[in-house]
Amino acid sequence: MRQTAAVLVLPTTSRACWPSTHGRRGFRLPQLTKPIAIGSRNLSQTRNWRSAPVPEVDRAGSKLFETADDAVADIKSGSVILSAGFGLCGVASTLIAALRRRGPESLHSLTAVSNNAGAEGRGGLAFLTESGQVDRMIMSYLGANKKLERQYLTGEIAVELCPQGTLAERIRAAGSGIPAFFTPTGGHTLVQEGAIPVRFDADGNVVEYGKPRETRIFNGKPYLMETALPGDVAILRAWKVDTAGNCVFRYTTKSFGPLMAKAAKLAIVEAENIVEVGEIDPNDVNLPGIYIDRIVPATEKSQVEILKTRSEGGSAKAAAKPSDALVRRNRIAKRAAKELKHGFYVNLGVGIPTLAPSFLPPGEQVWIQSENGILGMGDYPLPEDVDPDIVNAGKESVTLVAGAATFDSSESFSMIRGGHVDVSILGALQVSAAGDLANFMIPGKVFKGMGGAMDLVSNPESTKIVVATEHVAKDGSAKVVQSCALPLTGARVVSTIITDLCVFQVDRKRGTLTLTEIAPGVSVDEVKSKTDATFSVAEDLQTME
Amino acid sequence: MRQTAAVLVLPTTSRACWPSTHGRRGFRLPQLTKPIAIGSRNLSQTRNWRSAPVPEVDRAGSKLFETADDAVADIKSGSVILSAGFGLCGVASTLIAALRRRGPESLHSLTAVSNNAGAEGRGGLAFLTESGQVDRMIMSYLGANKKLERQYLTGEIAVELCPQGTLAERIRAAGSGIPAFFTPTGGHTLVQEGAIPVRFDADGNVVEYGKPRETRIFNGKPYLMETALPGDVAILRAWKVDTAGNCVFRYTTKSFGPLMAKAAKLAIVEAENIVEVGEIDPNDVNLPGIYIDRIVPATEKSQVEILKTRSEGGSAKAAAKPSDALVRRNRIAKRAAKELKHGFYVNLGVGIPTLAPSFLPPGEQVWIQSENGILGMGDYPLPEDVDPDIVNAGKESVTLVAGAATFDSSESFSMIRGGHVDVSILGALQVSAAGDLANFMIPGKVFKGMGGAMDLVSNPESTKIVVATEHVAKDGSAKVVQSCALPLTGARVVSTIITDLCVFQVDRKRGTLTLTEIAPGVSVDEVKSKTDATFSVAEDLQTME
Repeated sequence: MRQTAAVLVLPTTSRACWPSTHGRRGFRLPQLTKPIAIGSRNLSQTRNWRSAPVPEVDRAGSKLFETADDAVADIKSGSVILSAGFGLCGVASTLIAALRRRGPESLHSLTAVSNNAGAEGRGGLAFLTESGQVDRMIMSYLGANKKLERQYLTGEIAVELCPQGTLAERIRAAGSGIPAFFTPTGGHTLVQEGAIPVRFDADGNVVEYGKPRETRIFNGKPYLMETALPGDVAILRAWKVDTAGNCVFRYTTKSFGPLMAKAAKLAIVEAENIVEVGEIDPNDVNLPGIYIDRIVPATEKSQVEILKTRSEGGSAKAAAKPSDALVRRNRIAKRAAKELKHGFYVNLGVGIPTLAPSFLPPGEQVWIQSENGILGMGDYPLPEDVDPDIVNAGKESVTLVAGAATFDSSESFSMIRGGHVDVSILGALQVSAAGDLANFMIPGKVFKGMGGAMDLVSNPESTKIVVATEHVAKDGSAKVVQSCALPLTGARVVSTIITDLCVFQVDRKRGTLTLTEIAPGVSVDEVKSKTDATFSVAEDLQTME
Repeated sequence: MRQTAAVLVLPTTSRACWPSTHGRRGFRLPQLTKPIAIGSRNLSQTRNWRSAPVPEVDRAGSKLFETADDAVADIKSGSVILSAGFGLCGVASTLIAALRRRGPESLHSLTAVSNNAGAEGRGGLAFLTESGQVDRMIMSYLGANKKLERQYLTGEIAVELCPQGTLAERIRAAGSGIPAFFTPTGGHTLVQEGAIPVRFDADGNVVEYGKPRETRIFNGKPYLMETALPGDVAILRAWKVDTAGNCVFRYTTKSFGPLMAKAAKLAIVEAENIVEVGEIDPNDVNLPGIYIDRIVPATEKSQVEILKTRSEGGSAKAAAKPSDALVRRNRIAKRAAKELKHGFYVNLGVGIPTLAPSFLPPGEQVWIQSENGILGMGDYPLPEDVDPDIVNAGKESVTLVAGAATFDSSESFSMIRGGHVDVSILGALQVSAAGDLANFMIPGKVFKGMGGAMDLVSNPESTKIVVATEHVAKDGSAKVVQSCALPLTGARVVSTIITDLCVFQVDRKRGTLTLTEIAPGVSVDEVKSKTDATFSVAEDLQTME
């Protein structure tokens, strides 16, 4: 699959305009496999919307349409489509099927805005990218859509990557009459520099890059200015809709639907249940009817993108055999658990971080935040309890604990960016002596998008960022480095690094590393030999349990 | 009461920095009754928060406090208190009573952020301004709090007025990690110019003005930059709270509570019902527990600030006798009703605009938006149906129609500023030939704050702004003028002017007025004699019904 992977191509000149307090001088990518077409770079991709006439909204008429086909019959080619859902959860599959039935001759050149690109051959926007109806995607995560990656690399489809929280907030802003706002997310990264290729030509040359972001200091901290992201048409799916358009969403299906309906000139909802006006309590409305123009019955079934279950009496994870790798992972997770205190609100990245809570002392519990819109995430469900409307940030079926809450992506990333989460434990591809983190992309290899990773590290003053990772990569190369060569997720964000060999504390201000704990049987020399960064050794060096 | 009224004092030099496309050159206030102390003007009032140490939040401890007194015992003098509620609806009266019991020696120099200032002697923040514990208020509307007006004029309390939607959005931004955003609200007004006095000295000299706003053009339209408004402590009231802090709010009590809890370092909720974790459905949580640090039982009763009821079979309004004034008002309202189409979403100002829907043809209905957080507002309640948790933007008891929805102030003003409302009908003190509207303040007379008025006219491209007003003021002076002398609510915002004498259409781009309809028995000359603006007469001049 390597040959179809997206190749990151960067301009050779640095275009960083960030106040230079970080260690990224000399930042060079290891591979530049394509010639660079700087001259043809187009900075205006999100500014100049192709204007597609939007069907007139008639407030006097009924909002009910008999079928999805009727409701999308007058959507124009060139429209910007805001497509709701997180993965396949909450996706407007009935409407997408209808748009696809229009065919590429009748409906084409669409710009699709969505967190994800759907699952190839299974559902979501993949149906429209496969059919050749989409010209441009704006999203945070490509996921496993290999065909889209290929279309991106050959210039068939342009892809604008946008951090998930920024995507949600830009869509919210569009619906709220706010033309622009400032966010810490993406600072010191390729997003700020506008250095991620958006469009290639058929020969693989970059013909369009992202837009460099304007930066500004507030209260001593730099922020990026992001602009509103409006759409022509929003397509969403709700659990219950009354004939006035008031919508109720179940659990994690609400991640983007309410935001997108507000940001589009025309909003179409497919409803699993259509009820009379008055049947929904005013307190229960997640999206007021003013935002909805058309209602169609949902006829496509909800899918679970990644089905995960546990067996009675144990979790799926506990079933694995204790291999060497697992022993190392457990050592890391056990130490990571010490970063979690009873009652903490925490976000845990996939992999090792997810194991940490199982090492909490008896009686201690933490609230797990899942950035797609859960506070109080539980274990995988029993097979009989799988609910396609409850998934985690990895698009896996999960459960909710007692006391959980679910909310949209704007709320979820306000929670994250606002620093309300106590600790975020993440994996790393590289982490630097100054706390720079690279964990979303390897240039020259597959890149899937940053999802919510940049948002998760955007407020390290309020949310402690802990890296939990094996000390070296699979090829034996160091992960703890003096300066990251890989594209950053965030700069000076990591406070503590936990590996199978040791624990480092990072002084983010001074940009220095101190070895504070070491695993039994591991020498300082071994740590030194497997670390590409200078570090001091604490006088009271402790032993990891 | 005139002698206690706030007197607006403006600097003599114009500080307008707005692109000058409007007719406000020569803008002069009719009265300048106080000497002006420009030299001592302080522009930094919202930037330099006095830092009050906030009590430490312990995630491991119980959030439950036995009494409100316990929960506020460690609040520090000088704290910025975010106080929830709209009028007395949803206000944290139990916590406010406890703060007052601390007394001015123990707790003083507070900055209180709230939409309103409470009702004198009855409830809300008035209890703390009366007790001398508040040094500064940041709010959109003083309302009828005469004592606070007097304290403001004598320098005892500083008052920063902020449009309601901007206030809500600034608080939301603070909780969301967004340091600043751009809004159309307040453009071309004293808010933009920073020209509203914030603090007087004891002799009545202005010693501090508002902060002039930075402006910027997006997509050809100018916007103001507004900054986040964080707090040290939030106090709010919820209907149901579980021991993890998950909150559920009833109806219009949710206008500021959820926003404020997110923006404060410490959030205290008084709960009408405290339940165990697990008793609230994750879909029903309005404010996740991560934002709540302390929970106390609500012991003070909810109050209706302005009790309005209707009798069985008729509305309160219909009971009035048809005086000359009423005949004129009905003529205006009847014509205003023609601006409303079946199915429209409309916002109606107090007074004449409120009467318009009663003149709709049988079978036609509109959805009334009330900016405190209702879509689908109904009539006044029957006496037995009064619910203190359902009030309108005038703080009056109202009902909800079938299909209504309730939401917080950030959502409500997103709806307004985003242009989702079809028509907004407002009263006017003055309206100019170019569509400038002045309807919130008469310098030298009482000024109560702009509330949501500036937000309501912030998107005239998408929301048609209709003025419905008597043709002349009570003193016989013209209300339709060439250029407004009174402080503007918005510039070039009004599209149609409906009076008891005639109808004008405004060409907002060219800044011109055309007389298109005239009341029976009224001559063009009479309109001319009572209008201080030049206007052309339509060739097909129509007669008003």
